Amino acid sequence: MNLRKPYLVFLGEITLKSDAKTGFGLRDWCPADVIGQWALPQATVSLGLPVIAPSDAAALGAGSLVIGVAPVGGQLPDSWVPTLVQALDAGLDIVSGLHTRLESHPALVAAAARSGARLVNVRQSERPLPTGTGRKRSGLRVLTVGTDCALGKKYTALALTRALHARGAKASFRATGQTGIMIAGEGIAIDAVVADFIAGAAEMVSPDNAADHWDVIEGQGALFHPAYAGVTLGLLHGSQPDAIVLCHDPSRTTIEDYPHIPLPRLREAIRRYIEAAQLTNPGVRCVGVAINSSTLDDAAWARYRQVVADELGLPVCDPMRGGVDAIAQALLA
Amino acid sequence: MNLRKPYLVFLGEITLKSDAKTGFGLRDWCPADVIGQWALPQATVSLGLPVIAPSDAAALGAGSLVIGVAPVGGQLPDSWVPTLVQALDAGLDIVSGLHTRLESHPALVAAAARSGARLVNVRQSERPLPTGTGRKRSGLRVLTVGTDCALGKKYTALALTRALHARGAKASFRATGQTGIMIAGEGIAIDAVVADFIAGAAEMVSPDNAADHWDVIEGQGALFHPAYAGVTLGLLHGSQPDAIVLCHDPSRTTIEDYPHIPLPRLREAIRRYIEAAQLTNPGVRCVGVAINSSTLDDAAWARYRQVVADELGLPVCDPMRGGVDAIAQALLA
Repeated sequence: MNLRKPYLVFLGEITLKSDAKTGFGLRDWCPADVIGQWALPQATVSLGLPVIAPSDAAALGAGSLVIGVAPVGGQLPDSWVPTLVQALDAGLDIVSGLHTRLESHPALVAAAARSGARLVNVRQSERPLPTGTGRKRSGLRVLTVGTDCALGKKYTALALTRALHARGAKASFRATGQTGIMIAGEGIAIDAVVADFIAGAAEMVSPDNAADHWDVIEGQGALFHPAYAGVTLGLLHGSQPDAIVLCHDPSRTTIEDYPHIPLPRLREAIRRYIEAAQLTNPGVRCVGVAINSSTLDDAAWARYRQVVADELGLPVCDPMRGGVDAIAQALLA
Repeated sequence: MNLRKPYLVFLGEITLKSDAKTGFGLRDWCPADVIGQWALPQATVSLGLPVIAPSDAAALGAGSLVIGVAPVGGQLPDSWVPTLVQALDAGLDIVSGLHTRLESHPALVAAAARSGARLVNVRQSERPLPTGTGRKRSGLRVLTVGTDCALGKKYTALALTRALHARGAKASFRATGQTGIMIAGEGIAIDAVVADFIAGAAEMVSPDNAADHWDVIEGQGALFHPAYAGVTLGLLHGSQPDAIVLCHDPSRTTIEDYPHIPLPRLREAIRRYIEAAQLTNPGVRCVGVAINSSTLDDAAWARYRQVVADELGLPVCDPMRGGVDAIAQALLA
């Protein structure tokens, strides 16, 4: 999966900020790759970027129009099609993280055929995947893991990549989910591959590299999640991490949307991840804890951070509140 | 996935007994559902069943021609197509566990359209799958798990189902792989579903049932396998087993085809499976060990069995050598 940058971010008829997580993620994590935004007249949310029509964006050198909004119902609305056709006619690829394939709209297929632009479904891997080999690859790898889903594994990986660069280390963010792939411009949506190939796909995400190069791999799911733990374990085995960073949201006591499944204690979560990861990398260690502290005020966050650091003897950071340099430092130590 | 029985087993141009594992499995585990076999003239292996041409099998009431042989290269050879077309023209469904879809042969599509017979790809789930809910289902469940792949999880589950029936218990074999699905006539090939839906598919395999009914679920992969552990963990979580049976082959010291990955000790394997299974069923217990003892002579098997039983305090059986009644007894205790 290789995307053509820079991007024009399309926001459809967006009226809720929370529907544009992908758009905001692109703006925040690869600003140099985003030349502007475009939306339909009904839209009321903005990313604060220059407003550029698709044909103008193409003239300015854009490579792709990226769908940066989650539509209601998850389907691509017919009302978007004329704009997407204009973009294709101007030569822009269309990049989508939706479950529905772009090819299900004949007008898009026809426009792509006319101009030679591509329809890119980030959630679907087009190429055949190998099964996992367990072969040790060169280079170094760190994987973000979680006590649950949706609590900051992608942001932590992105922030850690930046922190490593700031320290002069060689590091690449490796994407395993749709927004991450758009940010990185490449990657594999691990949760969308056929079950037999989870670990094999994960091995492809971080290929052999220089001995002192860190792949910072975006985690998925959680080993303690009753629906997605299989994805998490296959990704863990295929990533062969030398280090893991545990991500946690202290406002949760049970798995989100699964009130009957309690979250593990942090120490227990680390033990279970390390034990599982040792299968393909016996030397794996935990180098830090990334906390999503958005529900804590400054005093509560300072107290909580100290308690966790004392208990685990590890650096404790919030990527959105002071950054993760302490974890980068532990990684390079 | 629902298959039309009884079956005619097709063996193609088979010359190696080991290529007909599916055919032998059907003969051994659902003999009442198999009315005969058919092969091309070059074939040199037989299941010892009546030889019946497809059109005669249809006249005798057969519902499906099942491909009971693994072709060299995994693709359906063109030389098979005329026979399969004859079967379709006679009204038989074609049931295939191959990776290639039957629909990739236009002649088969045309013949199926003519007669109304179905092309059934057992490895591909046609219906949309849900994600796992973790909701506790009624009824009882036992799952076979392994220290590795391909060491008897399906045979153990089938033998255990028989042993439970012999004791008068209500029990159903639940299939999660291609041969198992052909034997049961239904099931889901868990390793072929999209990664996000592994646990959800596993939940569908053993739906709510009577409080005293045992679902005996065919395991897949191994938690210690660098390529397939994700499948195993999702199946474990979705199955919500009340009991597990650990399957092991004492002739192996490393994962098959992965000489750098050692097998876990049996006690450690049980601990890891129980710990993982507790997420969706805190009451899970291990009720026995099923050994593939084919490499041991009688004296060595007796010694080995005693050592393992003494160490673990569990019944130790070989389903092919004395059966698994002791495990059925432990399950019902």
